[in-house]
Amino acid sequence: MQVKICYRKSVPAKKRSASNPARRSPCPLNASVEMLGDRWSLLIVRDIMIRGFHTFQQFLDSDEKIATNILADRLRKLEQSGIIKTSRNPADGRKLTYSLTRKGIELAPVLAEMVLWAADHEKTGNQALVRELRRDKAAVIERTRLLWSSSS
Amino acid sequence: MQVKICYRKSVPAKKRSASNPARRSPCPLNASVEMLGDRWSLLIVRDIMIRGFHTFQQFLDSDEKIATNILADRLRKLEQSGIIKTSRNPADGRKLTYSLTRKGIELAPVLAEMVLWAADHEKTGNQALVRELRRDKAAVIERTRLLWSSSS
Repeated sequence: MQVKICYRKSVPAKKRSASNPARRSPCPLNASVEMLGDRWSLLIVRDIMIRGFHTFQQFLDSDEKIATNILADRLRKLEQSGIIKTSRNPADGRKLTYSLTRKGIELAPVLAEMVLWAADHEKTGNQALVRELRRDKAAVIERTRLLWSSSS
Repeated sequence: MQVKICYRKSVPAKKRSASNPARRSPCPLNASVEMLGDRWSLLIVRDIMIRGFHTFQQFLDSDEKIATNILADRLRKLEQSGIIKTSRNPADGRKLTYSLTRKGIELAPVLAEMVLWAADHEKTGNQALVRELRRDKAAVIERTRLLWSSSS
């Protein structure tokens, strides 16, 4: 009788990284909520996409009053996820300028649907944007895409 | 000289409630992330909307393995926000059955855009749904709406 002994190298647990995020499940919705599922990340994307903000101080001054440490953490995670990118501020090399990547710009339809959903079911502001989205959502999204692709 | 003394009743801070959620800002996107901005709520909506789950145990058994206490908390918040509703389980009156309200059903476009965005930028599963959404998103959303409006 032949006995075959198999030596198996121990396989280290995979580390979580941008290229191998080791998600909780393969569901695409789960991937989205793992990257965006908190009370701040999409507001930062909104501030860059719609309001044209690009500095740490501008995000801090936004209406919802994010705390400094939470903002720093969310910016780091959004960059790790490839949603935003940073560059040195030309006016002050010690400071960073934040902008959207293509992946970030392509969140426009998600933002549009979340705005429309809330406006349909809650008392909310920015009725000008809501009216525009209700009238022609596709045009607003396309304009946002074009604006960003020409500036990046 | 007349001195006018003004007595001002102390005004109690407004309590946070479903009808007066005292949001951080009037922005509609902020309202959405206040209701849905966490790593679990939209997955519970997915489980009800797409998978037809309706019991606490079914949500617990879902791929992402939510913890019991977090699930209980998220279900309570989703009900407070008017996104899901509960009824007594006809087979066992001690247990609850969870379903979507109209407000919950109308999250279908948000879910669709988040699925498409993740599928475009990450390695994800459920390619059958992704292909269907890419082919005709509006039809998939409309079918979901009809399915739910006929069952509720």
